[in-house]
Amino acid sequence: MKKKEEMLKERYPQIAVVGDAEADARRYEEAVSIGRALGSLGATVITGGRGGIMEAVSKGARQTGALVAGILPSQDIDDANPYCGIVFPTGMDHARNALTVMAGDLVVAIGGGAGTLSEISFAWIYGKPVIAWKGRGWAGKLAGKSIDCRRPET
Amino acid sequence: MKKKEEMLKERYPQIAVVGDAEADARRYEEAVSIGRALGSLGATVITGGRGGIMEAVSKGARQTGALVAGILPSQDIDDANPYCGIVFPTGMDHARNALTVMAGDLVVAIGGGAGTLSEISFAWIYGKPVIAWKGRGWAGKLAGKSIDCRRPET
Amino acid sequence: MKKKEEMLKERYPQIAVVGDAEADARRYEEAVSIGRALGSLGATVITGGRGGIMEAVSKGARQTGALVAGILPSQDIDDANPYCGIVFPTGMDHARNALTVMAGDLVVAIGGGAGTLSEISFAWIYGKPVIAWKGRGWAGKLAGKSIDCRRPET
Amino acid sequence: MKKKEEMLKERYPQIAVVGDAEADARRYEEAVSIGRALGSLGATVITGGRGGIMEAVSKGARQTGALVAGILPSQDIDDANPYCGIVFPTGMDHARNALTVMAGDLVVAIGGGAGTLSEISFAWIYGKPVIAWKGRGWAGKLAGKSIDCRRPET
Repeated sequence: MKKKEEMLKERYPQIAVVGDAEADARRYEEAVSIGRALGSLGATVITGGRGGIMEAVSKGARQTGALVAGILPSQDIDDANPYCGIVFPTGMDHARNALTVMAGDLVVAIGGGAGTLSEISFAWIYGKPVIAWKGRGWAGKLAGKSIDCRRPET
Repeated sequence: MKKKEEMLKERYPQIAVVGDAEADARRYEEAVSIGRALGSLGATVITGGRGGIMEAVSKGARQTGALVAGILPSQDIDDANPYCGIVFPTGMDHARNALTVMAGDLVVAIGGGAGTLSEISFAWIYGKPVIAWKGRGWAGKLAGKSIDCRRPET
Repeated sequence: MKKKEEMLKERYPQIAVVGDAEADARRYEEAVSIGRALGSLGATVITGGRGGIMEAVSKGARQTGALVAGILPSQDIDDANPYCGIVFPTGMDHARNALTVMAGDLVVAIGGGAGTLSEISFAWIYGKPVIAWKGRGWAGKLAGKSIDCRRPET
Repeated sequence: MKKKEEMLKERYPQIAVVGDAEADARRYEEAVSIGRALGSLGATVITGGRGGIMEAVSKGARQTGALVAGILPSQDIDDANPYCGIVFPTGMDHARNALTVMAGDLVVAIGGGAGTLSEISFAWIYGKPVIAWKGRGWAGKLAGKSIDCRRPET
């Protein structure tokens, strides 16, 4: 049996999920399932804290009782979607994308436009393992590809 | 009784605690007690994630089962003290002081040198309620004082 | 004739040039020429302040007497390449990429790996006009392409 | 006689001037004189790019032909005061205070409220020489004082 001191030292693996701030109903539900799956694995789920894919993933993860965090572009804690259990405002607008990625032991990219593309770039730069959801957006385009020569194709 | 959806939306009040990265045994224990008190109140406790006062407060809060977060100056999740349940690396060095403060619904300042002084300044700028621990450091000097004319003395 | 007060108010157009931190001799010289061309147009040239393409462009622009600025990832003014007439350290590592792009009235992208890709993403997000140098790297791949639906293909 | 290559490598000393965003007529003129003095010494003058003391110092320095830079809290180059010859928007709001200070080989503090106090704190943390203008605000209060034990009183 673990001693209390050891239990205090536990931190769940942090998974940063990056994706669009908008999502139609079908994609929203898809992202809720992804959040649920990640939460069930026992991960802490971190997103950019806003709507669309970010909200959907947060909702799914929260349903499993997982810790859900949002790293906001704005300065205002209250701008987070309602599924965030802890909120980190940054006041850095899109530059917070670097911080979202930095907070993940692992990065999951879903669909995505230019914001997500910047996050995939940062994940690559920081040497984070990236799981790119196949099919749509920049995540789909870059799934299984090498971004530059600093890391071999995975 | 609350419905499940409502419960999902709950977020505990976030208290940012700012203080020195070093602490002698007596001050360390004092800060553990403060962390324990804040945790017992049901708050999420956020610090700069390093040693000294930050670690002590994290330890105390964690003992009560509260969520403890660390906002690190470095890029490396593993630089956090072992009592953080969730870690936010920033890679921004001391400029992360602005973010630590921004994450608090309330800011508690304990002792403190120049880093803490910058955090008290930011708390003032962002209009956060500040509780300055009387007695030592900049927190002690500024307790009950007005920093500039933008807010009345409290 | 302009009055003195009006002359004081002049600011030259700021062109942010983004590109790799490494460059072989041929690409270095190519980038020197680009810097010279931009400087001759009367632009202030801004780069990430490091070596490779950034240094080459700075060198070329400086030769024309243009103002050359470097926005560094590190905290140390002295880390800049020697052609910078003014240096802005950020201590934000790669997150400074957002700032480099923000400082340009126009962004020029040359070759480029993941860092440059993040900068092209930010240029797109911030609505900056982007000139992508054809031929190599992410700049070459994205020249003439639309990154997401927020702006029409150009 | 210096060779061309050597001349290219010249960078003027960078002086960061921190002070209030507001100033009455007398203090504005005082700050214009300070800017003029710094510019005459051959320094590049860097401020937070806004109004009040920042604008006044920029105006004075610009009158001497010195390079004047503004590091803005906002994302918009056009928010700078008209005396800036080069503008660095950050989109980081008050967190840009850390960057303003980092850009100075030397920091001059004039008057000042909480923003200036945060900048003096950062100057202290980063080990920058600080000249605090005697008489008013936090600069006046801290002139000749030691902020914490990491540096001896100066």
